[in-house]
Amino acid sequence: MSPAPPGLTVAADRVQADLESLAALVEPGLPGWTRTALGPVDRQARELVRRWMSDAGLETSVDGAGNIFGRLRGTGSGRALMVGSHTDTVLGGGRFDGIVGVVGALEAVRALREAGVRLEHDLVVVDFFHEEPNEFGLSCVGSRAMVGAISAAHLDLRDERDRSLAAALAAVDVDPSALLGARHDFARVDAFVELHIEQGPYLEEHGSQIGLVESITGISRFRALFSGQADHAGTAPMDRRRDAGCAAAGTVLAVERIAGEGMQTRGTSGQLTFTPAAVNVVTAHAEFRGELRGPEEEWLRSAQDALTAAAHDEGSRRGVDVEVDWLPLQEPTAMSDGVVSVLGDVVDGLGLSSTRLFSGAEHDAALIARAVPTGMLFVPSRDGRSHCPEEWTDLNDVVAGVTALTHALLALDRRGPTR
Amino acid sequence: MSPAPPGLTVAADRVQADLESLAALVEPGLPGWTRTALGPVDRQARELVRRWMSDAGLETSVDGAGNIFGRLRGTGSGRALMVGSHTDTVLGGGRFDGIVGVVGALEAVRALREAGVRLEHDLVVVDFFHEEPNEFGLSCVGSRAMVGAISAAHLDLRDERDRSLAAALAAVDVDPSALLGARHDFARVDAFVELHIEQGPYLEEHGSQIGLVESITGISRFRALFSGQADHAGTAPMDRRRDAGCAAAGTVLAVERIAGEGMQTRGTSGQLTFTPAAVNVVTAHAEFRGELRGPEEEWLRSAQDALTAAAHDEGSRRGVDVEVDWLPLQEPTAMSDGVVSVLGDVVDGLGLSSTRLFSGAEHDAALIARAVPTGMLFVPSRDGRSHCPEEWTDLNDVVAGVTALTHALLALDRRGPTR
Repeated sequence: MSPAPPGLTVAADRVQADLESLAALVEPGLPGWTRTALGPVDRQARELVRRWMSDAGLETSVDGAGNIFGRLRGTGSGRALMVGSHTDTVLGGGRFDGIVGVVGALEAVRALREAGVRLEHDLVVVDFFHEEPNEFGLSCVGSRAMVGAISAAHLDLRDERDRSLAAALAAVDVDPSALLGARHDFARVDAFVELHIEQGPYLEEHGSQIGLVESITGISRFRALFSGQADHAGTAPMDRRRDAGCAAAGTVLAVERIAGEGMQTRGTSGQLTFTPAAVNVVTAHAEFRGELRGPEEEWLRSAQDALTAAAHDEGSRRGVDVEVDWLPLQEPTAMSDGVVSVLGDVVDGLGLSSTRLFSGAEHDAALIARAVPTGMLFVPSRDGRSHCPEEWTDLNDVVAGVTALTHALLALDRRGPTR
Repeated sequence: MSPAPPGLTVAADRVQADLESLAALVEPGLPGWTRTALGPVDRQARELVRRWMSDAGLETSVDGAGNIFGRLRGTGSGRALMVGSHTDTVLGGGRFDGIVGVVGALEAVRALREAGVRLEHDLVVVDFFHEEPNEFGLSCVGSRAMVGAISAAHLDLRDERDRSLAAALAAVDVDPSALLGARHDFARVDAFVELHIEQGPYLEEHGSQIGLVESITGISRFRALFSGQADHAGTAPMDRRRDAGCAAAGTVLAVERIAGEGMQTRGTSGQLTFTPAAVNVVTAHAEFRGELRGPEEEWLRSAQDALTAAAHDEGSRRGVDVEVDWLPLQEPTAMSDGVVSVLGDVVDGLGLSSTRLFSGAEHDAALIARAVPTGMLFVPSRDGRSHCPEEWTDLNDVVAGVTALTHALLALDRRGPTR
């Protein structure tokens, strides 16, 4: 590896200030640090990012999917390196998920410029629109659109009030038809790198400053509807009930059991609603949304079958009709060996401790990897907590990640095309 | 038994018209026939009943608990027979629960007057306020107040938005302090009779027109809170989660299992709420309201212990904190042998088929029985369905019940005091 320029340093105070400015944009009256992509505040965050891009000397643009781009021209003929993450959060989320990678990419640009380093590649900083899953069950909306993995059927997904995803997008000024046409031209992009918090306990437990992601989890989300019969809680005999709530509860436990049997697999029953929800009425309907995750597609497919069978079994034992709808399976995604190897060399060269790991969280990188050689850098999450107000990463750790990201862009630039 | 006056007949068309008028009063936008006591429409229903009482020649009054009374003076010195039921419904309920007994009592008065029959007893028709359980877990509010079984602690019960029951009562113009002072003077009341739909399948299965209730179920309601930890659904390992949703789901199944092991016992998990309710976040908090019912207090107490233990077991296996709060146990209540015997003789004398049974549903009669010799008459429910829009009783069956009620009042009047 050629040595990095001596003046290439990351400004910790600037990183901290930017993180605090973005984290301060939250939806009033909601728990934690909430800035959902379909809510009223994430637009402000993305406009702020766009302003920061301009201030850092980038040419900004927005595509039809609401993704924000900032381009720093290189000395070459227009080949590019892409770098970025997202600004939106889950409901009740934390202060680091997503924005570390956006702020980190911007700081990398600033650090390179201040050190007087001009890359041959254009540097394209991206703030992906709407990474976190919405109430329609769809995640990574912006990066999905960029790789052509979104369809009219997605836009017709319905929430509990029967509003379409298309209507929800239009409400935050993302034109649904423009989104369908927002496929990105990656022909001149040589690599994508995303910096992100780990969101799990692995780095902290292994005492590592940096995680080198080898692959990103596969995800399979479902919506299960249980239809039984409302009955009087005092008069309907136990053996004649059609209790949709009990069938759903049995299925919640099946998710836990099935995921507990795999290796590095997860199963979560995040949403469960009983109707009519009266203390003295047998539950007529239960709506249940959950997901399975794992590093192996084969396991995911067999777990889908096992869970569907378990739900039907829980239903049929109680005379409850069951419908399980699986969203299209998101396959596990390997990162590029070439990019991961460059990232590893850079991290070693900087004297940072690192470990290779599997990401149980989904990321825009998993979508972009379909089009471009991709790698991810993780920084530690305290106690492995994320998607909650307690989410925390020390500034030192963030700065180490941003430093690794900055040097990685330099190394990738010098390496030339990888494909 | 002395023969009833030849002209003593019930007007089926009047019964039908009154049932339809009351059933038509529903809360807009809600499922089924919804007229909750704390909602905006039940007051109209009770005002209508009060008007009908006046039209039928009764002296009306309202007590501090919102109970509506209509008194028909007898020829004696003021001893009374009490008869009635309630007008409120559960959310998404049906067209017969409660109002059959109110309309039936009014029609009994009209039939007696039209036949020129004057009783020695005063006849007191009651429309009890707020029989169905509310979101605070409290039921039979009006009859409970009449027997002094309501306290300031009840009024301080909180709903999910931390509103007190006192505030909810005040919002429908029932003064909380007046309610605490609404203890009724039963010294001169010789008996109470309530006509009601069965709400279960027993009469239909046995081909009986009338049910003679021997006892009313005991009920034990609980609120269980499960407190775990919100975590990222992809990164938090299954064996390190503190999933409050799974602990609650296991407890739902424990309710089903425990109630399924008893005789004529019931267990229902009507309300379950997950927080934060995001598909990719481990559930941090679950709030669960349910109940156990049975004819034996001993079983109820042991079932409470078994369920509390099961909830704590489901929690401790998952590192989830559990709090189970039991409302005061409502003990199983025997009806008065004397009154049931009179009701049985009347029904036999009218040539109606009948069967003695246990009520799995709670009723105002269970409260009033603490103060006065009490009996209940049931009419059949189609398919045993109740607390749902499909609730149905044929007019012929209702009229048979009203006829039995009318003649029962006559028989109780002629029998004299029983205490």
